[in-house]
Amino acid sequence: MTQNIYDDETFFENYSQLPRSVHGLDGAPEWPALRAMLPPLQDRRVLDLGCGYGWFCRWAAEQGAAGVLGVDVSEQMLARAQAMTRDPAIRYERADLERFAPSSGLDLAYSSLAFHYLTDLGGLLGRVHDALAPGGALVCSVEHPMMTAPRHQGWSEDASGLPTWPVGGYLDEGPRSTDWLAKGVIKQHRTIETYLALLSQAGFTLACLKEWGPSPEQVAANPDWVRERQRPPFLLLAARRP
Amino acid sequence: MTQNIYDDETFFENYSQLPRSVHGLDGAPEWPALRAMLPPLQDRRVLDLGCGYGWFCRWAAEQGAAGVLGVDVSEQMLARAQAMTRDPAIRYERADLERFAPSSGLDLAYSSLAFHYLTDLGGLLGRVHDALAPGGALVCSVEHPMMTAPRHQGWSEDASGLPTWPVGGYLDEGPRSTDWLAKGVIKQHRTIETYLALLSQAGFTLACLKEWGPSPEQVAANPDWVRERQRPPFLLLAARRP
Repeated sequence: MTQNIYDDETFFENYSQLPRSVHGLDGAPEWPALRAMLPPLQDRRVLDLGCGYGWFCRWAAEQGAAGVLGVDVSEQMLARAQAMTRDPAIRYERADLERFAPSSGLDLAYSSLAFHYLTDLGGLLGRVHDALAPGGALVCSVEHPMMTAPRHQGWSEDASGLPTWPVGGYLDEGPRSTDWLAKGVIKQHRTIETYLALLSQAGFTLACLKEWGPSPEQVAANPDWVRERQRPPFLLLAARRP
Repeated sequence: MTQNIYDDETFFENYSQLPRSVHGLDGAPEWPALRAMLPPLQDRRVLDLGCGYGWFCRWAAEQGAAGVLGVDVSEQMLARAQAMTRDPAIRYERADLERFAPSSGLDLAYSSLAFHYLTDLGGLLGRVHDALAPGGALVCSVEHPMMTAPRHQGWSEDASGLPTWPVGGYLDEGPRSTDWLAKGVIKQHRTIETYLALLSQAGFTLACLKEWGPSPEQVAANPDWVRERQRPPFLLLAARRP
């Protein structure tokens, strides 16, 4: 089973204070870019892999989705997600994504910042592909491989004093231990090449790839985000089952 | 017109001593990966954009290509290329790729490490797409965006003394001046997102993306290449006109 860091008390306490935990989708600066990659959800059957507090599930239901299933490994997060809705179109299920097999007839599989925790992402992508109806979509975000590559993550400065992100170990894929919200959080580093190859091997066709960082306008409004333009923090992917 | 650095004497002198200049395709460690992305060339019409000394043109002719056109902006390189063949299937033409429009009926457009010099890559891709027969392929290599991003390029070290490549300015696309073989060589930095978007806007479908660095076996045979596994030096792309 994947490390269930979300039920670690320190991690959960810190995670619950992030802007995206407090403010939901509007607290996630990459959300407008990810939303623009989604198909219309009216009357569609939607799956959220790693649903956390269920912000996306509730949003999808508001868009008129016929049914929304949120899956997460964290008992605490699902409890909060469940407490925040009475919408009968939304259902939550606790499962380890390493083994979770969705039921067929899906129109959209969505996942925000969860896939980089999985060791067997290819296995999950294959099961998701097979559960999607032809023409169905997968839209997801992961930490950008430049983020996950270094064994010692942190900022540095170039000769002009501008922030740089030293990349190392990019081609050596596998686990990375980082101290993010708690000590020893394990993420899986994969290259962009591998993300695209796993999608292709699962039967998907790539529809869109975005290397997300804040726009100059977002940086003007939040000056400390300037670092995030030096290397994109997130990779956003949209793919289709042909 | 694009900076024609290849006709700068210092650059040309240094370039002519690189392993890939002396030994041709076999002197380019990424060649086996790029070759594996090519379609069969027997009886095909082939275009090499930025052909340099013509190593690829001669190889393509040896594979049985029906016709090979090599295009380059450098007079000196074309002179050497011309001197190395009498094969009537091969023809060379001097042209600036910013404006070059290939004739129709192409089966393969190939380009090795040339596109990152162009300011209007989208324009060239559109003209190449229109010249390809349906099902025709584009296979190319460029410097990896992690290579071209920093305004001050160079290696550093992490806390363990391992080499790192500090990335900065990744999301700020545009010209970068580097001192590579000569002072003030201008390359155009583009993100992976932009390369894929330009292909898509030109009408191409992505077939394969590789972030090339030396294999562990290549590093064992050439220990000083270990740095090149810390961040891939080249991005290889294959696309098709549907």
